[in-house]
Amino acid sequence: MGQIIIHEVGLRDGLQMEKQTVPTEKKIEWADALIAAGVDILQLGSFVHPTKVPQMADTDALFRHYQEPGRRPANVILAGLVLNEKGLERGMACGVDMFCMGVSASETHSRKNTGMSIAEATERIIAMGKQTVAFGKRAQVSVQSAFGCGFEGYVPPERVLGIVRKFLDAGLKNISLADTAGHATPEAVEQLFGAIHRLDPSAECTCHFHNTYALGIANCRAAMNAGVQYFESSIAGLGGCPHTKVAGGNVCTEDFVHYLHRIGIRADIHLDRLLETASSVAQYFARDLPGMVYKSGPIPTPAPVH
Amino acid sequence: MGQIIIHEVGLRDGLQMEKQTVPTEKKIEWADALIAAGVDILQLGSFVHPTKVPQMADTDALFRHYQEPGRRPANVILAGLVLNEKGLERGMACGVDMFCMGVSASETHSRKNTGMSIAEATERIIAMGKQTVAFGKRAQVSVQSAFGCGFEGYVPPERVLGIVRKFLDAGLKNISLADTAGHATPEAVEQLFGAIHRLDPSAECTCHFHNTYALGIANCRAAMNAGVQYFESSIAGLGGCPHTKVAGGNVCTEDFVHYLHRIGIRADIHLDRLLETASSVAQYFARDLPGMVYKSGPIPTPAPVH
Repeated sequence: MGQIIIHEVGLRDGLQMEKQTVPTEKKIEWADALIAAGVDILQLGSFVHPTKVPQMADTDALFRHYQEPGRRPANVILAGLVLNEKGLERGMACGVDMFCMGVSASETHSRKNTGMSIAEATERIIAMGKQTVAFGKRAQVSVQSAFGCGFEGYVPPERVLGIVRKFLDAGLKNISLADTAGHATPEAVEQLFGAIHRLDPSAECTCHFHNTYALGIANCRAAMNAGVQYFESSIAGLGGCPHTKVAGGNVCTEDFVHYLHRIGIRADIHLDRLLETASSVAQYFARDLPGMVYKSGPIPTPAPVH
Repeated sequence: MGQIIIHEVGLRDGLQMEKQTVPTEKKIEWADALIAAGVDILQLGSFVHPTKVPQMADTDALFRHYQEPGRRPANVILAGLVLNEKGLERGMACGVDMFCMGVSASETHSRKNTGMSIAEATERIIAMGKQTVAFGKRAQVSVQSAFGCGFEGYVPPERVLGIVRKFLDAGLKNISLADTAGHATPEAVEQLFGAIHRLDPSAECTCHFHNTYALGIANCRAAMNAGVQYFESSIAGLGGCPHTKVAGGNVCTEDFVHYLHRIGIRADIHLDRLLETASSVAQYFARDLPGMVYKSGPIPTPAPVH
């Protein structure tokens, strides 16, 4: 198993689901805490039209904040989600290190989100990915709805692998499979990531799971077994829809890190800082968030000796 | 992988954690629904002193209810938890099919719970197990705090395996490892159950996990991989402490069955009945319970076709 890399997406995938807009100063406070905790990649926001997703209106400002000298350690990668060339342009102008972009493996989802077919969207994302690399930046290309779709249900693995093959052929090796609808099972995770590894052992794989059906960390563990190194997760398990009772947020960062610490991995990440941040986020939204360990407290380490 | 057996413990491990006592009629309504849903083993309650755990005061009455002709199908096993010889006597008198009994692998936990050392408690449980078998009934012998202890922290696997070896030597082959404190990780689960399988390939293993630190189903999947066949779980994820915000209940039955259905296992269990029952339990306690799928609804099966 390679090094496990934590890619925190709460400020993007988490906050975009919230009705309540978070002030830029609050986002910076949480981002600073997450950086101090030692997350490897921090996704600060997405470059979408501010009238469409008002929660993301300050994405450029956030990146510009971290362009100032001394505002962040050199070893954190700041990532941003882009949907189109305009976003890429904005992100280049404000200092994004890593551009995340994706295609849905569901025709319905693709057309609803982008107005394009899968084939059209794939072509466009590949062009954007190549441009990103040409700019000297990191490009992460993802397949959304890779394990099933809320509209279409079953998504054939061959369709996902067809898109992945096109990414790899274009030299885009940082491949993410996103389980937008929460349909993944550990079995499907091992199958799909195993297939990508056979397609190209040099692919760098990222997984992005939602805990909608209680399989979030089980899927992460399956991904670890399948050689995935990059794990997208949200502080406090943000990312569910706050207007329903469904707590289908992203895999919770601090719960996942708590697990990693239990098995002796990534002891360099400061769990206490993550737990403080999760509590701060939950307090801000004034509701219980899906994370477990910020409520229970961690298992004491080192273990008490009898 | 062998057949997966669902052992529902919500009426015992779930309700004993609740302050609010559930009337016998309500318990029967839920038990009937769980039987109709097709759970394999149904733990109706524990034989403890009613002043100690008032929620379990009607355990004998519940078993007697199901002694009446026509009140249950032949293929469900009714189980009860016993702590001592008195409980065994009560259970024999009211028609228990399967007696569950256990020893803690933590000295502190053992002394707090039973006033006995691990060695003394093991001897006693083995005697009770043998008596159960002599009566022609099923005996399940468990090691509690098998993966760690809330008081002591780390519990050495060798200590757990020492107790298990004594059980096996006494001819008691239905071995349960209970993760009372929720400390298990998939890695520890594979290690311990793997070791039991090497000690005695004919052992029939049961697992009992709490989701305190978000690893419940990840641990179940590790147990499946390690050849465990019997899975204890609670409807709606009951079993956490309702007086704190910690949702550390048992693995949720309907969430686990939803996962099994996704991978083509135990399609004979009626998920819809389980979901109805979970909703009924949550409604009764008038609060959100940890189960996810009763809130989100299941993923439609068969998958919609595009």
